[in-house]
This record gives sequence, C-alpha cells and structure tokens, in this order.
Amino acid sequence: MLTGGLPAATMDAIAARAGASKATIYKWWPSRAAVALDGFLDRVAGTLAIPPAMSAPQALTWQIDALIQIFRDTTAGPLMRALVAAAQADPDIAQALRDQWLGPRRAVSLEILRSGVRRGEIRSGLDEEAIMDQLFAPVYHRLFFGHAPMSDDLAAIMVAQLMAGIALLLGAYLAISGLVRLS
Amino acid sequence: MLTGGLPAATMDAIAARAGASKATIYKWWPSRAAVALDGFLDRVAGTLAIPPAMSAPQALTWQIDALIQIFRDTTAGPLMRALVAAAQADPDIAQALRDQWLGPRRAVSLEILRSGVRRGEIRSGLDEEAIMDQLFAPVYHRLFFGHAPMSDDLAAIMVAQLMAGIALLLGAYLAISGLVRLS
Repeated sequence: MLTGGLPAATMDAIAARAGASKATIYKWWPSRAAVALDGFLDRVAGTLAIPPAMSAPQALTWQIDALIQIFRDTTAGPLMRALVAAAQADPDIAQALRDQWLGPRRAVSLEILRSGVRRGEIRSGLDEEAIMDQLFAPVYHRLFFGHAPMSDDLAAIMVAQLMAGIALLLGAYLAISGLVRLS
Repeated sequence: MLTGGLPAATMDAIAARAGASKATIYKWWPSRAAVALDGFLDRVAGTLAIPPAMSAPQALTWQIDALIQIFRDTTAGPLMRALVAAAQADPDIAQALRDQWLGPRRAVSLEILRSGVRRGEIRSGLDEEAIMDQLFAPVYHRLFFGHAPMSDDLAAIMVAQLMAGIALLLGAYLAISGLVRLS
C-alpha cells in the first residue's frame, strides 16, 4: 500500500505480508481500504495535541505544519493517498474519514479559531468552514496532485496571507469590491 | 464511472456500454483512467475563458465559481473524483492531470493575480502558488471528502477572506506575529 497504492495492496498481498490467512484478515477488516484506514489512524494518533500559550495564528500555523510533516515525512502520506482514492468509490471509507479524521481535527482547529475571536485576534462573523479549508485543503491538494512542494515555510505563509489579506490597500479594496463587511 | 466510480468502470464495462470490442477500446486508451481523463477534459473544454473588464478579485471569484459549478452540477465532478483516485497509484494519470488540467488553469489564474498586482489591487511579493491553493484547493477538498457543501457563495467568501484578511486589527496582528512584511 505504501509503495504500490491501493491497487497493489490486495487482501491476498496483505495476508501474505502479515503471515496470516486471508480469512483471518477478513475477520478483522472488511476491505483493504479498512486496513489502510486503521494503519493511517494508528500512525496519526496523538498528533492533535496543541502546545498551550500560543496565539490563534501561531497555533494554526503549528497545526498546518504538523499536518505537512505527517504527510510529507511519514507513511501516513501514502496511506492518506490510498484512502482518498478508496473514498471516491466507497462511501463507508469516506464517512469514516470524515468521522475519525477530518471531524476531530477540524473541531480542534475551530476551537483555536474561536478562541482567537474571543481574544480579539480574529474578526467575528467569518465563514469558519471556509477558513479551515483555506488553511488545510492546500496541504491535501499538494499531496494528491503533486503540483507544488509541501515546503517548510508553507504553513506560516498561508496563515500570514489569510490573516493579513493580500489586498494592497484594504480600504480601497473594500470600497471597490463591496465584497466584505468588517464586523 | 459516473455512478460506480473507477472500480465499476472496467474496460469490459466500458466496451459493453460503447458497443465496441475491448480490443477497440484498448486501441485508443491504455486504461480506464485514460478514458476518464478524456471524458473529463471533453466536458471541461472551453471553461477557461474569463470575461474581460473584471478586477482581479472579481475574475478570481468568477473562476472559482465556475469550478464549483463544473464539479457540483455536471458529470465532470464524478469524473474528477475517479481521476484523483486513479492518480494516487498511476503516475501517468497524475502527470496528465497536472499538464492538461491544473497547469493550464493555474496559468490563467496566475495571470489574473499578476494583473491585479500591476493594477495595484493586490500586494506584490506574495507566494503565488500558495494563493492559488488557498482559493482553489478548498473546492477539490469538498468534492473529495464531502465534509462541507460547495455552496453558491463559497467563491465570493473565500476571495473576500483572502483579500481582506481575517485579522481583527491588521496593525496589531502584524506587530504581534512578526509573520508578515508588507511590501
């Protein structure tokens, strides 16, 4: 699964590598995607802890950077690639990924975001789900498509760009576009 | 492929649906993923045109919105899901997706971004690749994981949040974080 992706990791191959019968493997996992999911969750266990005493932008940067390191430097990267492939045709895997991976992680990130709002670091009235995606989706995108590297400074750059905005003159942008209401 | 994903679309099934022999299908396409790629590119042909006389934020919003509509409302959505699944274990498909889909689209978006910098709408010195991902990756992320809807206002919200930033007080944020240098 790590080297050949999901197509190479047949239940036969998994049983052979484990030195167990295929019946034994099927007794515990209904599919090879389920094996991948358990392997992935095992590798990422404990990666949700956030250091205390960080501002919201610092904590979000820390989280994105942890995700980059997990995907880029550990076997969780190829396992996530196998899982997203399986999830496109297997609703159970898609649901399990949302419930056991994306959901818990997003809950932690949302609490960071909201604490930032309470502390006056971040505006209120924003689209929280869209913010999550604008910070974390790029990491998955680069893992799945390989169009750009998961570089060491990516997390800090993305948080900085989203925090400060990319408009040259914020007031002029607001006046021209009518897109934003500062709350 | 549209209803059962890549696993259901065997070359046998494709040949049967097309009323052709499997040999004929293989003559033109080396794999079912290659069939999916041609089908996808056929459906999205001509979706790169940008209306003239738009500001950079307007044009980027227009582009993201077009992508959302393509993925949400046409068969290009399920085809892209089949393609990303195939790309995780098939480097040829991954390369073709980068060369024939992501690359040309990003080139157009980059030119929009740079014209925005030239016109004074957007700051210079930003990470262009990261901006592209912070605007477009969320659409793919929602297509692949289904954790949040591709809503009608998503494009405008994401552009607004990235243009104006999410910090409550930009100056205070800059001073606290030291993350950003305004160019």
